[in-house]
Amino acid sequence: MNKPFVNTLRVRYGETDQMGYVYYGNYALYLELARTELIRNVGVSYKDLEKDGIMLPVSELNISYRSAAKYDDELTMQTHIIGDINRKITFKTIIHCDNRLVAEGNVSLFFVDANTRKVISCPEHIKQKLVEFSEA
Amino acid sequence: MNKPFVNTLRVRYGETDQMGYVYYGNYALYLELARTELIRNVGVSYKDLEKDGIMLPVSELNISYRSAAKYDDELTMQTHIIGDINRKITFKTIIHCDNRLVAEGNVSLFFVDANTRKVISCPEHIKQKLVEFSEA
Amino acid sequence: MNKPFVNTLRVRYGETDQMGYVYYGNYALYLELARTELIRNVGVSYKDLEKDGIMLPVSELNISYRSAAKYDDELTMQTHIIGDINRKITFKTIIHCDNRLVAEGNVSLFFVDANTRKVISCPEHIKQKLVEFSEA
Amino acid sequence: MNKPFVNTLRVRYGETDQMGYVYYGNYALYLELARTELIRNVGVSYKDLEKDGIMLPVSELNISYRSAAKYDDELTMQTHIIGDINRKITFKTIIHCDNRLVAEGNVSLFFVDANTRKVISCPEHIKQKLVEFSEA
Repeated sequence: MNKPFVNTLRVRYGETDQMGYVYYGNYALYLELARTELIRNVGVSYKDLEKDGIMLPVSELNISYRSAAKYDDELTMQTHIIGDINRKITFKTIIHCDNRLVAEGNVSLFFVDANTRKVISCPEHIKQKLVEFSEA
Repeated sequence: MNKPFVNTLRVRYGETDQMGYVYYGNYALYLELARTELIRNVGVSYKDLEKDGIMLPVSELNISYRSAAKYDDELTMQTHIIGDINRKITFKTIIHCDNRLVAEGNVSLFFVDANTRKVISCPEHIKQKLVEFSEA
Repeated sequence: MNKPFVNTLRVRYGETDQMGYVYYGNYALYLELARTELIRNVGVSYKDLEKDGIMLPVSELNISYRSAAKYDDELTMQTHIIGDINRKITFKTIIHCDNRLVAEGNVSLFFVDANTRKVISCPEHIKQKLVEFSEA
Repeated sequence: MNKPFVNTLRVRYGETDQMGYVYYGNYALYLELARTELIRNVGVSYKDLEKDGIMLPVSELNISYRSAAKYDDELTMQTHIIGDINRKITFKTIIHCDNRLVAEGNVSLFFVDANTRKVISCPEHIKQKLVEFSEA
Protein backbone atom coordinates (compact mmCIF):
# COMPACT_ATOMS: atom_id res chain seq x y z
CA MET A 1 0.00 0.00 0.00
CA ASN A 2 1.22 3.50 -0.78
CA LYS A 3 2.16 5.69 2.14
CA PRO A 4 -0.47 8.20 3.19
CA PHE A 5 0.09 11.91 2.93
CA VAL A 6 0.75 13.25 6.41
CA ASN A 7 0.21 16.74 7.77
CA THR A 8 -0.38 18.25 11.18
CA LEU A 9 -2.31 21.12 12.68
CA ARG A 10 -2.85 22.62 16.09
CA VAL A 11 -6.40 23.15 17.37
CA ARG A 12 -7.34 26.84 17.65
CA TYR A 13 -9.36 28.25 20.52
CA GLY A 14 -12.14 29.41 18.24
CA GLU A 15 -12.56 25.86 16.96
CA THR A 16 -13.71 24.53 20.34
CA ASP A 17 -17.23 24.74 21.70
CA GLN A 18 -18.59 24.95 25.22
CA MET A 19 -18.18 21.22 25.78
CA GLY A 20 -14.46 22.07 25.68
CA TYR A 21 -13.87 20.02 22.53
CA VAL A 22 -13.45 20.79 18.85
CA TYR A 23 -16.88 21.61 17.42
CA TYR A 24 -17.96 18.71 15.21
CA GLY A 25 -18.42 20.91 12.16
CA ASN A 26 -14.85 22.19 12.27
CA TYR A 27 -13.49 18.80 11.23
CA ALA A 28 -14.64 19.75 7.73
CA LEU A 29 -11.98 22.49 7.81
CA TYR A 30 -9.36 19.96 8.90
CA LEU A 31 -10.27 17.51 6.14
CA GLU A 32 -10.13 20.34 3.61
CA LEU A 33 -6.66 21.21 4.86
CA ALA A 34 -5.51 17.59 4.52
CA ARG A 35 -6.68 17.22 0.93
CA THR A 36 -5.50 20.62 -0.28
CA GLU A 37 -2.05 20.04 1.23
CA LEU A 38 -1.94 16.59 -0.40
CA ILE A 39 -2.78 18.14 -3.75
CA ARG A 40 -0.17 20.84 -3.30
CA ASN A 41 2.38 18.19 -2.33
CA VAL A 42 2.08 16.38 -5.65
CA GLY A 43 2.73 19.62 -7.50
CA VAL A 44 -0.80 20.68 -8.31
CA SER A 45 -2.45 23.51 -6.45
CA TYR A 46 -6.10 23.81 -5.78
CA LYS A 47 -5.81 27.48 -6.67
CA ASP A 48 -4.37 26.56 -10.08
CA LEU A 49 -7.20 24.09 -10.64
CA GLU A 50 -9.69 26.91 -10.13
CA LYS A 51 -7.72 29.15 -12.51
CA ASP A 52 -7.87 26.33 -15.08
CA GLY A 53 -11.63 26.38 -14.76
CA ILE A 54 -11.97 23.24 -12.65
CA MET A 55 -14.08 23.33 -9.52
CA LEU A 56 -14.24 20.58 -6.93
CA PRO A 57 -17.55 20.76 -5.08
CA VAL A 58 -18.02 18.22 -2.31
CA SER A 59 -20.62 15.52 -2.94
CA GLU A 60 -20.30 13.39 0.20
CA LEU A 61 -18.93 13.90 3.68
CA ASN A 62 -18.68 11.17 6.30
CA ILE A 63 -17.03 11.58 9.67
CA SER A 64 -16.76 9.12 12.54
CA TYR A 65 -15.81 10.79 15.79
CA ARG A 66 -13.84 8.41 17.98
CA SER A 67 -12.44 10.58 20.76
CA ALA A 68 -12.41 14.28 21.51
CA ALA A 69 -9.78 16.79 20.47
CA LYS A 70 -9.16 19.81 22.64
CA TYR A 71 -7.75 23.28 22.30
CA ASP A 72 -4.02 23.27 21.57
CA ASP A 73 -3.92 19.55 20.70
CA GLU A 74 -1.60 18.80 17.82
CA LEU A 75 -3.44 16.59 15.37
CA THR A 76 -1.77 14.35 12.81
CA MET A 77 -3.71 13.61 9.65
CA GLN A 78 -2.98 10.68 7.34
CA THR A 79 -4.69 10.89 4.00
CA HIS A 80 -5.18 8.41 1.15
CA ILE A 81 -7.12 8.65 -2.05
CA ILE A 82 -9.48 5.68 -2.15
CA GLY A 83 -11.09 4.12 -5.21
CA ASP A 84 -10.69 5.31 -8.77
CA ILE A 85 -10.04 8.90 -9.70
CA ASN A 86 -12.40 9.74 -12.48
CA ARG A 87 -15.37 12.06 -12.34
CA LYS A 88 -15.17 11.83 -8.59
CA ILE A 89 -12.29 11.62 -6.14
CA THR A 90 -12.50 10.38 -2.56
CA PHE A 91 -10.08 11.31 0.20
CA LYS A 92 -9.91 9.27 3.38
CA THR A 93 -8.28 10.97 6.34
CA ILE A 94 -7.43 9.41 9.69
CA ILE A 95 -6.83 11.90 12.50
CA HIS A 96 -4.77 11.07 15.56
CA CYS A 97 -3.68 13.02 18.62
CA ASP A 98 -0.45 11.32 19.67
CA ASN A 99 -1.46 7.67 19.35
CA ARG A 100 -5.11 8.19 20.12
CA LEU A 101 -7.57 7.90 17.23
CA VAL A 102 -9.66 11.07 17.09
CA ALA A 103 -11.68 10.77 13.91
CA GLU A 104 -11.92 9.26 10.46
CA GLY A 105 -13.34 11.23 7.59
CA ASN A 106 -14.14 10.53 3.95
CA VAL A 107 -14.80 13.33 1.50
CA SER A 108 -15.86 12.83 -2.12
CA LEU A 109 -15.65 15.65 -4.64
CA PHE A 110 -16.75 16.00 -8.23
CA PHE A 111 -14.62 17.48 -10.98
CA VAL A 112 -16.75 20.25 -12.45
CA ASP A 113 -16.17 22.59 -15.38
CA ALA A 114 -16.47 26.08 -13.91
CA ASN A 115 -18.06 27.48 -17.06
CA THR A 116 -20.61 24.85 -17.90
CA ARG A 117 -20.97 23.68 -14.26
CA LYS A 118 -21.05 20.13 -15.69
CA VAL A 119 -19.25 17.14 -14.21
CA ILE A 120 -16.07 16.23 -16.10
CA SER A 121 -13.36 13.61 -15.78
CA CYS A 122 -10.19 14.39 -13.89
CA PRO A 123 -7.56 15.56 -16.41
CA GLU A 124 -5.09 12.72 -17.05
CA HIS A 125 -1.94 14.65 -16.04
CA ILE A 126 -3.47 15.44 -12.67
CA LYS A 127 -4.59 11.86 -12.17
CA GLN A 128 -1.03 10.67 -12.78
CA LYS A 129 0.24 12.87 -10.01
CA LEU A 130 -2.42 11.99 -7.48
CA VAL A 131 -1.90 8.26 -7.87
CA GLU A 132 1.11 8.55 -5.54
CA PHE A 133 -1.29 8.70 -2.60
CA SER A 134 -3.81 6.15 -3.81
CA GLU A 135 -4.61 3.56 -1.21
CA ALA A 136 -4.21 0.60 -3.52
CA MET B 1 -45.16 7.95 9.32
CA ASN B 2 -44.94 10.82 11.77
CA LYS B 3 -44.57 14.30 10.37
CA PRO B 4 -41.08 15.68 10.32
CA PHE B 5 -40.08 18.69 12.36
CA VAL B 6 -39.74 21.64 10.02
CA ASN B 7 -37.67 24.79 10.42
CA THR B 8 -36.14 27.34 8.08
CA LEU B 9 -33.04 29.50 7.90
CA ARG B 10 -31.56 32.05 5.58
CA VAL B 11 -27.99 31.60 4.32
CA ARG B 12 -25.60 34.22 5.72
CA TYR B 13 -22.89 35.83 3.65
CA GLY B 14 -20.13 34.52 5.87
CA GLU B 15 -21.36 30.99 5.27
CA THR B 16 -20.48 31.07 1.57
CA ASP B 17 -17.06 30.42 0.09
CA GLN B 18 -15.37 31.70 -3.03
CA MET B 19 -17.21 29.23 -5.25
CA GLY B 20 -20.23 31.36 -4.34
CA TYR B 21 -21.97 28.52 -2.51
CA VAL B 22 -22.43 27.57 1.12
CA TYR B 23 -19.15 26.12 2.40
CA TYR B 24 -19.60 22.37 2.84
CA GLY B 25 -18.59 22.46 6.51
CA ASN B 26 -21.30 24.97 7.40
CA TYR B 27 -24.04 22.41 6.86
CA ALA B 28 -23.00 21.02 10.23
CA LEU B 29 -24.27 24.28 11.75
CA TYR B 30 -27.56 23.91 9.90
CA LEU B 31 -28.04 20.32 11.06
CA GLU B 32 -27.28 21.40 14.62
CA LEU B 33 -29.93 24.08 14.30
CA ALA B 34 -32.49 21.57 13.04
CA ARG B 35 -31.97 19.10 15.87
CA THR B 36 -31.77 21.69 18.66
CA GLU B 37 -34.96 23.35 17.44
CA LEU B 38 -36.65 19.95 17.25
CA ILE B 39 -35.61 19.23 20.82
CA ARG B 40 -36.83 22.63 21.98
CA ASN B 41 -40.11 22.07 20.17
CA VAL B 42 -40.95 18.96 22.22
CA GLY B 43 -40.38 20.90 25.41
CA VAL B 44 -36.84 19.88 26.24
CA SER B 45 -33.98 22.30 25.77
CA TYR B 46 -30.48 21.33 24.91
CA LYS B 47 -29.33 23.91 27.43
CA ASP B 48 -31.37 22.19 30.12
CA LEU B 49 -29.91 18.83 29.17
CA GLU B 50 -26.44 20.24 29.77
CA LYS B 51 -27.54 21.69 33.10
CA ASP B 52 -28.84 18.24 34.03
CA GLY B 53 -25.38 16.86 33.37
CA ILE B 54 -26.15 15.27 30.02
CA MET B 55 -23.87 15.94 27.08
CA LEU B 56 -24.59 14.95 23.50
CA PRO B 57 -21.32 14.59 21.61
CA VAL B 58 -21.65 13.70 17.95
CA SER B 59 -20.47 10.23 16.95
CA GLU B 60 -21.29 10.17 13.23
CA LEU B 61 -21.95 12.77 10.57
CA ASN B 62 -23.02 11.98 7.02
CA ILE B 63 -23.97 14.57 4.45
CA SER B 64 -24.92 14.12 0.80
CA TYR B 65 -24.74 17.35 -1.13
CA ARG B 66 -27.29 17.32 -3.97
CA SER B 67 -27.35 20.90 -5.23
CA ALA B 68 -25.77 24.14 -4.15
CA ALA B 69 -27.22 26.71 -1.77
CA LYS B 70 -26.30 30.35 -2.17
CA TYR B 71 -26.19 33.47 -0.08
CA ASP B 72 -29.66 34.63 0.97
CA ASP B 73 -31.37 31.38 -0.03
CA GLU B 74 -34.09 30.37 2.37
CA LEU B 75 -33.60 26.74 3.29
CA THR B 76 -36.31 24.48 4.66
CA MET B 77 -35.20 21.63 6.87
CA GLN B 78 -37.32 18.56 7.59
CA THR B 79 -36.04 16.43 10.43
CA HIS B 80 -36.92 12.98 11.72
CA ILE B 81 -35.41 10.84 14.43
CA ILE B 82 -34.51 7.50 12.86
CA GLY B 83 -34.02 4.19 14.62
CA ASP B 84 -34.27 3.61 18.35
CA ILE B 85 -33.48 6.24 20.93
CA ASN B 86 -31.32 4.61 23.50
CA ARG B 87 -27.66 5.27 24.13
CA LYS B 88 -27.53 6.93 20.77
CA ILE B 89 -29.94 9.12 18.83
CA THR B 90 -29.89 9.75 15.08
CA PHE B 91 -31.41 12.76 13.36
CA LYS B 92 -32.05 12.72 9.64
CA THR B 93 -32.51 16.12 8.04
CA ILE B 94 -33.55 16.85 4.46
CA ILE B 95 -32.78 20.34 3.23
CA HIS B 96 -34.65 21.99 0.38
CA CYS B 97 -34.49 25.39 -1.25
CA ASP B 98 -38.00 25.90 -2.64
CA ASN B 99 -38.62 22.48 -4.19
CA ARG B 100 -35.04 21.74 -5.02
CA LEU B 101 -33.23 19.14 -2.88
CA VAL B 102 -30.05 20.71 -1.48
CA ALA B 103 -28.68 18.14 0.94
CA GLU B 104 -29.46 15.24 3.22
CA GLY B 105 -27.68 14.83 6.50
CA ASN B 106 -27.64 12.25 9.28
CA VAL B 107 -26.15 13.01 12.66
CA SER B 108 -25.79 10.48 15.48
CA LEU B 109 -25.10 11.59 19.02
CA PHE B 110 -24.33 9.72 22.23
CA PHE B 111 -25.96 10.47 25.55
CA VAL B 112 -23.04 11.05 27.92
CA ASP B 113 -22.91 11.75 31.63
CA ALA B 114 -21.05 15.05 31.95
CA ASN B 115 -19.37 14.02 35.20
CA THR B 116 -18.22 10.51 34.42
CA ARG B 117 -17.99 11.15 30.66
CA LYS B 118 -19.53 7.69 30.22
CA VAL B 119 -22.23 6.77 27.73
CA ILE B 120 -25.68 6.49 29.29
CA SER B 121 -29.19 5.71 28.07
CA CYS B 122 -31.54 8.50 27.14
CA PRO B 123 -33.71 9.31 30.17
CA GLU B 124 -37.18 7.81 29.70
CA HIS B 125 -39.14 11.09 30.05
CA ILE B 126 -37.06 12.66 27.29
CA LYS B 127 -37.46 9.63 25.05
CA GLN B 128 -41.24 9.88 25.44
CA LYS B 129 -41.19 13.43 24.17
CA LEU B 130 -38.89 12.83 21.25
CA VAL B 131 -40.93 9.95 19.89
CA GLU B 132 -43.28 12.51 18.33
CA PHE B 133 -40.73 13.03 15.56
CA SER B 134 -39.62 9.43 15.15
CA GLU B 135 -39.69 8.29 11.58
CA ALA B 136 -41.45 5.02 12.28
CA MET C 1 -33.46 60.58 16.17
CA ASN C 2 -34.69 57.95 13.76
CA LYS C 3 -35.63 54.60 15.18
CA PRO C 4 -33.01 51.91 14.85
CA PHE C 5 -33.58 48.80 12.79
CA VAL C 6 -34.23 45.91 15.14
CA ASN C 7 -33.68 42.21 14.58
CA THR C 8 -33.08 39.21 16.79
CA LEU C 9 -31.14 35.96 16.66
CA ARG C 10 -30.59 32.98 18.87
CA VAL C 11 -27.03 31.89 19.71
CA ARG C 12 -26.11 28.55 18.12
CA TYR C 13 -24.08 25.91 19.91
CA GLY C 14 -21.30 26.02 17.37
CA GLU C 15 -20.89 29.74 18.01
CA THR C 16 -19.71 29.21 21.59
CA ASP C 17 -16.17 28.37 22.66
CA GLN C 18 -14.83 26.43 25.60
CA MET C 19 -15.24 29.39 27.96
CA GLY C 20 -18.95 28.71 27.44
CA TYR C 21 -19.56 32.06 25.74
CA VAL C 22 -20.00 33.19 22.16
CA TYR C 23 -16.58 33.21 20.50
CA TYR C 24 -15.50 36.83 20.04
CA GLY C 25 -15.02 36.43 16.29
CA ASN C 26 -18.59 35.26 15.75
CA TYR C 27 -19.98 38.71 16.54
CA ALA C 28 -18.83 39.64 13.04
CA LEU C 29 -21.48 37.21 11.75
CA TYR C 30 -24.11 38.86 13.95
CA LEU C 31 -23.21 42.36 12.76
CA GLU C 32 -23.36 41.15 9.17
CA LEU C 33 -26.81 39.78 9.83
CA ALA C 34 -27.97 43.09 11.32
CA ARG C 35 -26.80 45.19 8.38
CA THR C 36 -27.98 42.84 5.65
CA GLU C 37 -31.42 42.58 7.26
CA LEU C 38 -31.54 46.38 7.56
CA ILE C 39 -30.69 46.70 3.88
CA ARG C 40 -33.31 44.13 2.93
CA ASN C 41 -35.86 45.92 5.10
CA VAL C 42 -35.58 49.16 3.09
CA GLY C 43 -36.21 47.26 -0.10
CA VAL C 44 -32.69 46.74 -1.34
CA SER C 45 -31.04 43.37 -1.14
CA TYR C 46 -27.37 42.79 -0.71
CA LYS C 47 -27.68 40.03 -3.30
CA ASP C 48 -29.13 42.52 -5.79
CA LEU C 49 -26.31 44.95 -5.06
CA GLU C 50 -23.81 42.26 -6.04
CA LYS C 51 -25.79 41.48 -9.18
CA ASP C 52 -25.63 45.21 -10.02
CA GLY C 53 -21.88 45.02 -9.79
CA ILE C 54 -21.55 46.69 -6.40
CA MET C 55 -19.43 45.06 -3.73
CA LEU C 56 -19.28 46.16 -0.10
CA PRO C 57 -15.95 45.09 1.39
CA VAL C 58 -15.48 45.93 5.06
CA SER C 59 -12.88 48.60 5.85
CA GLU C 60 -13.18 48.89 9.62
CA LEU C 61 -14.55 46.72 12.40
CA ASN C 62 -14.79 47.80 16.03
CA ILE C 63 -16.43 45.76 18.74
CA SER C 64 -16.70 46.47 22.47
CA TYR C 65 -17.66 43.41 24.44
CA ARG C 66 -19.63 44.40 27.55
CA SER C 67 -20.99 41.13 28.87
CA ALA C 68 -21.02 37.56 27.69
CA ALA C 69 -23.64 35.88 25.55
CA LYS C 70 -24.26 32.18 25.95
CA TYR C 71 -25.68 29.33 23.93
CA ASP C 72 -29.41 29.71 23.30
CA ASP C 73 -29.51 33.35 24.40
CA GLU C 74 -31.83 35.44 22.29
CA LEU C 75 -30.00 38.57 21.24
CA THR C 76 -31.68 41.79 20.13
CA MET C 77 -29.76 43.98 17.75
CA GLN C 78 -30.49 47.67 17.20
CA THR C 79 -28.78 49.17 14.19
CA HIS C 80 -28.31 52.72 12.95
CA ILE C 81 -26.36 54.10 10.05
CA ILE C 82 -24.00 56.74 11.43
CA GLY C 83 -22.40 59.61 9.54
CA ASP C 84 -22.82 60.34 5.86
CA ILE C 85 -23.46 57.69 3.28
CA ASN C 86 -21.11 58.35 0.45
CA ARG C 87 -18.13 56.26 -0.58
CA LYS C 88 -18.33 54.60 2.78
CA ILE C 89 -21.20 53.55 5.02
CA THR C 90 -20.99 52.86 8.74
CA PHE C 91 -23.41 50.68 10.68
CA LYS C 92 -23.57 50.88 14.45
CA THR C 93 -25.19 47.94 16.18
CA ILE C 94 -26.03 47.62 19.86
CA ILE C 95 -26.63 44.08 21.06
CA HIS C 96 -28.68 43.27 24.15
CA CYS C 97 -29.76 40.06 25.83
CA ASP C 98 -32.98 41.00 27.61
CA ASN C 99 -31.99 44.33 29.14
CA ARG C 100 -28.32 43.51 29.55
CA LEU C 101 -25.87 45.20 27.17
CA VAL C 102 -23.79 42.51 25.46
CA ALA C 103 -21.77 44.36 22.84
CA GLU C 104 -21.55 47.38 20.59
CA GLY C 105 -20.12 47.09 17.13
CA ASN C 106 -19.33 49.50 14.31
CA VAL C 107 -18.68 48.28 10.80
CA SER C 108 -17.62 50.53 7.90
CA LEU C 109 -17.86 49.31 4.32
CA PHE C 110 -16.76 50.80 1.02
CA PHE C 111 -18.90 50.87 -2.09
CA VAL C 112 -16.75 49.20 -4.75
CA ASP C 113 -17.33 48.62 -8.45
CA ALA C 114 -17.06 44.86 -8.90
CA ASN C 115 -15.47 45.18 -12.34
CA THR C 116 -12.89 47.90 -11.78
CA ARG C 117 -12.53 47.13 -8.04
CA LYS C 118 -12.46 50.90 -7.50
CA VAL C 119 -14.24 52.77 -4.75
CA ILE C 120 -17.43 54.49 -5.92
CA SER C 121 -20.15 56.60 -4.33
CA CYS C 122 -23.31 55.00 -3.08
CA PRO C 123 -25.95 55.23 -5.84
CA GLU C 124 -28.42 58.00 -5.00
CA HIS C 125 -31.57 55.82 -5.07
CA ILE C 126 -30.04 53.47 -2.52
CA LYS C 127 -28.92 56.33 -0.32
CA GLN C 128 -32.48 57.65 -0.26
CA LYS C 129 -33.75 54.36 1.07
CA LEU C 130 -31.08 53.88 3.70
CA VAL C 131 -31.61 57.32 5.21
CA GLU C 132 -34.61 55.90 7.10
CA PHE C 133 -32.21 54.33 9.56
CA SER C 134 -29.68 57.14 9.78
CA GLU C 135 -28.89 58.11 13.31
CA ALA C 136 -29.26 61.84 12.75
CA MET D 1 11.72 49.09 20.18
CA ASN D 2 11.48 45.37 20.88
CA LYS D 3 11.10 43.08 17.93
CA PRO D 4 7.58 41.90 17.23
CA PHE D 5 6.60 38.27 17.51
CA VAL D 6 6.26 36.87 14.01
CA ASN D 7 4.19 33.94 12.81
CA THR D 8 2.67 32.88 9.52
CA LEU D 9 -0.43 31.09 8.30
CA ARG D 10 -1.91 30.03 5.03
CA VAL D 11 -5.48 31.04 4.16
CA ARG D 12 -7.87 28.06 4.08
CA TYR D 13 -10.58 27.67 1.48
CA GLY D 14 -13.34 27.72 4.06
CA GLU D 15 -12.12 31.10 5.31
CA THR D 16 -12.99 32.86 2.05
CA ASP D 17 -16.41 34.16 1.09
CA GLN D 18 -18.12 34.59 -2.25
CA MET D 19 -16.28 37.85 -2.95
CA GLY D 20 -13.25 35.55 -3.23
CA TYR D 21 -11.53 37.10 -0.22
CA VAL D 22 -11.06 36.13 3.39
CA TYR D 23 -14.33 36.75 5.23
CA TYR D 24 -13.88 39.78 7.48
CA GLY D 25 -14.86 37.91 10.61
CA ASN D 26 -12.18 35.28 10.14
CA TYR D 27 -9.43 37.77 10.94
CA ALA D 28 -10.48 37.30 14.56
CA LEU D 29 -9.20 33.71 14.25
CA TYR D 30 -5.91 34.97 12.83
CA LEU D 31 -5.43 37.51 15.62
CA GLU D 32 -6.19 34.81 18.17
CA LEU D 33 -3.54 32.62 16.56
CA ALA D 34 -0.98 35.45 16.70
CA ARG D 35 -1.49 36.17 20.38
CA THR D 36 -1.68 32.56 21.53
CA GLU D 37 1.51 31.70 19.63
CA LEU D 38 3.20 34.75 21.15
CA ILE D 39 2.16 33.60 24.61
CA ARG D 40 3.37 30.08 23.93
CA ASN D 41 6.67 31.47 22.61
CA VAL D 42 7.50 33.14 25.92
CA GLY D 43 6.95 29.88 27.75
CA VAL D 44 3.41 30.35 28.98
CA SER D 45 0.57 28.50 27.38
CA TYR D 46 -2.94 29.74 27.13
CA LYS D 47 -4.07 26.25 28.05
CA ASP D 48 -2.03 26.41 31.26
CA LEU D 49 -3.51 29.80 32.07
CA GLU D 50 -6.98 28.27 31.91
CA LYS D 51 -5.86 25.35 34.08
CA ASP D 52 -4.56 27.91 36.61
CA GLY D 53 -8.01 29.42 36.69
CA ILE D 54 -7.26 32.47 34.57
CA MET D 55 -9.54 33.34 31.70
CA LEU D 56 -8.84 35.98 29.08
CA PRO D 57 -12.12 37.23 27.62
CA VAL D 58 -11.80 39.82 24.87
CA SER D 59 -12.97 43.33 25.73
CA GLU D 60 -12.16 45.23 22.53
CA LEU D 61 -11.52 44.28 18.92
CA ASN D 62 -10.47 46.75 16.24
CA ILE D 63 -9.51 45.77 12.72
CA SER D 64 -8.57 47.98 9.78
CA TYR D 65 -8.76 46.14 6.49
CA ARG D 66 -6.23 47.57 4.03
CA SER D 67 -6.17 45.07 1.16
CA ALA D 68 -7.73 41.71 0.51
CA ALA D 69 -6.27 38.31 1.30
CA LYS D 70 -7.19 35.35 -0.86
CA TYR D 71 -7.30 31.60 -0.58
CA ASP D 72 -3.84 30.05 -0.28
CA ASP D 73 -2.12 33.39 0.48
CA GLU D 74 0.61 33.06 3.06
CA LEU D 75 0.11 35.76 5.66
CA THR D 76 2.82 37.05 7.97
CA MET D 77 1.71 38.44 11.30
CA GLN D 78 3.83 40.75 13.44
CA THR D 79 2.57 41.19 16.97
CA HIS D 80 3.46 43.56 19.79
CA ILE D 81 1.95 44.07 23.20
CA ILE D 82 1.05 47.73 23.50
CA GLY D 83 0.58 49.75 26.67
CA ASP D 84 0.85 48.40 30.19
CA ILE D 85 0.05 44.84 31.13
CA ASN D 86 -2.12 44.97 34.18
CA ARG D 87 -5.78 44.09 34.41
CA LYS D 88 -5.91 44.30 30.66
CA ILE D 89 -3.48 43.37 27.90
CA THR D 90 -3.56 44.69 24.34
CA PHE D 91 -2.06 42.92 21.34
CA LYS D 92 -1.42 44.80 18.12
CA THR D 93 -0.96 42.65 15.04
CA ILE D 94 0.07 43.80 11.58
CA ILE D 95 -0.71 41.36 8.78
CA HIS D 96 1.16 41.34 5.49
CA CYS D 97 0.99 39.19 2.37
CA ASP D 98 4.48 39.45 0.92
CA ASN D 99 5.13 43.18 1.27
CA ARG D 100 1.52 44.23 0.93
CA LEU D 101 -0.27 45.42 4.06
CA VAL D 102 -3.45 43.38 4.52
CA ALA D 103 -4.80 44.41 7.90
CA GLU D 104 -4.02 45.80 11.31
CA GLY D 105 -5.79 44.53 14.37
CA ASN D 106 -5.83 45.39 18.06
CA VAL D 107 -7.31 43.05 20.62
CA SER D 108 -7.66 43.86 24.32
CA LEU D 109 -8.34 41.13 26.85
CA PHE D 110 -9.10 41.16 30.57
CA PHE D 111 -7.47 38.85 33.08
CA VAL D 112 -10.37 37.17 34.84
CA ASP D 113 -10.50 34.71 37.74
CA ALA D 114 -12.34 31.70 36.38
CA ASN D 115 -14.02 30.98 39.70
CA THR D 116 -15.17 34.41 40.77
CA ARG D 117 -15.42 35.71 37.17
CA LYS D 118 -13.88 38.95 38.51
CA VAL D 119 -11.18 40.99 36.81
CA ILE D 120 -7.72 40.45 38.31
CA SER D 121 -4.22 41.75 37.62
CA CYS D 122 -1.88 39.79 35.42
CA PRO D 123 0.31 37.58 37.65
CA GLU D 124 3.78 39.14 37.95
CA HIS D 125 5.73 36.10 36.64
CA ILE D 126 3.64 36.10 33.48
CA LYS D 127 4.05 39.84 33.03
CA GLN D 128 7.83 39.45 33.22
CA LYS D 129 7.76 36.98 30.36
CA LEU D 130 5.44 38.94 28.13
CA VAL D 131 7.49 42.13 28.37
CA GLU D 132 9.84 40.68 25.74
CA PHE D 133 7.28 41.59 23.08
CA SER D 134 6.17 44.92 24.51
CA GLU D 135 6.24 47.69 21.97
CA ALA D 136 8.08 50.17 24.18
